[in-house]
Amino acid sequence: MNPAWWREACQPLDNAAMDQARARQQQLTKPTGSLGQLEGLAVRLAGLQGQERPSLEQVAITLFAGDHGVVEEGVSAYPQAVTGQMLRNFVAGGAAISVLARQLQASLEVVDLGTIDPELELPGVRHLRLGAGTANFARQRAMTEAQLQSALQAGRDSALRAAANGAQLFIGGEMGIGNTTAAAAVASALLGCPARELSGPGTGLDSSGVSHKADVIERALVLHNLPMAEPLQALACVGGFEIAALTGAYLACAQQGIGVLVDGFICSVAALLAVRINPQSRDWLLFAHQGAEPGHRAVLTALQAEPLLALGLRLGEGSGAALAVPLMRLACALHGQMATFAEAAVADRPA
Amino acid sequence: MNPAWWREACQPLDNAAMDQARARQQQLTKPTGSLGQLEGLAVRLAGLQGQERPSLEQVAITLFAGDHGVVEEGVSAYPQAVTGQMLRNFVAGGAAISVLARQLQASLEVVDLGTIDPELELPGVRHLRLGAGTANFARQRAMTEAQLQSALQAGRDSALRAAANGAQLFIGGEMGIGNTTAAAAVASALLGCPARELSGPGTGLDSSGVSHKADVIERALVLHNLPMAEPLQALACVGGFEIAALTGAYLACAQQGIGVLVDGFICSVAALLAVRINPQSRDWLLFAHQGAEPGHRAVLTALQAEPLLALGLRLGEGSGAALAVPLMRLACALHGQMATFAEAAVADRPA
Repeated sequence: MNPAWWREACQPLDNAAMDQARARQQQLTKPTGSLGQLEGLAVRLAGLQGQERPSLEQVAITLFAGDHGVVEEGVSAYPQAVTGQMLRNFVAGGAAISVLARQLQASLEVVDLGTIDPELELPGVRHLRLGAGTANFARQRAMTEAQLQSALQAGRDSALRAAANGAQLFIGGEMGIGNTTAAAAVASALLGCPARELSGPGTGLDSSGVSHKADVIERALVLHNLPMAEPLQALACVGGFEIAALTGAYLACAQQGIGVLVDGFICSVAALLAVRINPQSRDWLLFAHQGAEPGHRAVLTALQAEPLLALGLRLGEGSGAALAVPLMRLACALHGQMATFAEAAVADRPA
Repeated sequence: MNPAWWREACQPLDNAAMDQARARQQQLTKPTGSLGQLEGLAVRLAGLQGQERPSLEQVAITLFAGDHGVVEEGVSAYPQAVTGQMLRNFVAGGAAISVLARQLQASLEVVDLGTIDPELELPGVRHLRLGAGTANFARQRAMTEAQLQSALQAGRDSALRAAANGAQLFIGGEMGIGNTTAAAAVASALLGCPARELSGPGTGLDSSGVSHKADVIERALVLHNLPMAEPLQALACVGGFEIAALTGAYLACAQQGIGVLVDGFICSVAALLAVRINPQSRDWLLFAHQGAEPGHRAVLTALQAEPLLALGLRLGEGSGAALAVPLMRLACALHGQMATFAEAAVADRPA
């Protein structure tokens, strides 16, 4: 493994393709700007794909799962066993992301980075088993340096497989009981923002549960004494295996030149980590939605993200990103297939 | 033609199917409520279709076009000839809605209710020619009683054709240079709201153009002295052929029991007319998006609508509704295909 591969240069956007796409948008038979966010999206995808008329046939979804030691502090509404049970559901086809991947004809890879059940062996799941979940970050570092590097590399490996398979868009999803707590802790460290502003109900805590979760995070941040400028340290101390893998995947996508569609709160925290580790990666990140978890808005704002959807989603698994794919495909179809004013003999100038 | 058919009863929603769908949502392998708006949407579609697991394979799009005499007051950025030119573009396949209908495998019907070119004859377009556009409502009623009834009936006929073809969802689109002016005038009359709060740039007016447009509307409202309680009178005096046809189509869909997906500002004004004419029709209307035209928000609020998208769209043609269809289809797929907690052997109760 190349040490510090994550700091290597990202691919540049193709400015010529973006200029061509922008010029094309001006010529299509519609008032300028009337397709709103979809116009800029088509131009951006042109830049990512290096072609005037981008397309999104090949979408790769990788779901990263891991357990969280901090769950023993009572920060989740669901028992930790659900992480492993859901891994089974992902590959059996019954989970939300399984249904969405089928509908989108997207590939779905499921990576187990380490759950509480070290015996778990499911056909169709890549079991990497970096540990029986992270350690409880309320008491110690969530992961060792070796675990951190392996998790980052696991994400990178997924991105490299997606690249090898010709993916035009990469979606990372996550599953891990307790991971909104880890994500809120990382975001709190990176944004210098109180944990109570970034802590939410996750899968369904009540208000006293949310308050307890924020207290657990605040105490952990004091324990680890994290400087804002050290994203990898924050990730290792209070993050999670799946968050590290997402971060590695996003960085590798930017280095490989594959556009990324970022899902909800946890993925957005991984995106923030990626951008703090290697700011060039920001160009490759598109944001699917503004979710219901209260910390999501702060993270999106810090990333200057303009998400496509706001449907009150809070499921994770990459589901919000998957839901935005048809909109992106339609943006490409409109951009690529609409007639120009000249082709359609429509008056193209204001009266 | 049955006189006042528009007041006849609408179909009731199927409450039993909605209860079944609600119960199913509770059992799917995800935290309760985590699919946000998509959960209520699936339940609503169950009620509209009378089945626990709704689907949206058959989508019918009808595009209603008409010209507007009020354009002679200088209220549009584009020349009136564009209406007819775009009719050609719709059937030739180069317009936004043509591309979207193809991508969605939706039917696309194009109805010309009356443009300034009475000779216009295009294969694939239904030319009804109720007049060479409406009259200039700044000076006189936009349409006669006979034109109003014919336009409402034209919409109804489209809805009946959609029903005969097995449509599970009806989308109405509109095209008509000047029609944001007519829509703002109708909304202003129905909501008792100053025209300047509902007038926007349409296809691209600058701020002095918007201000002039609001003045034209205000003077017309004084001229016609419209009472808020008379939606059909407002429609006849300051509306448009395509707005009347949309209103008729929405009402007939509600009577036939076909769900409607309402597009942008102009379609939402037609929806408001439909609900004011026959309040039962409200149950059958779903709202696709919050558009960029400033009056749209006020109309959506009056309708207590919860649109799915907010992408800054302002194209019309039914394009915003078409863009929301994949999201609705995915909501159906998730609802119908996800595993239950029992099926997937996942712990379904908070720890």
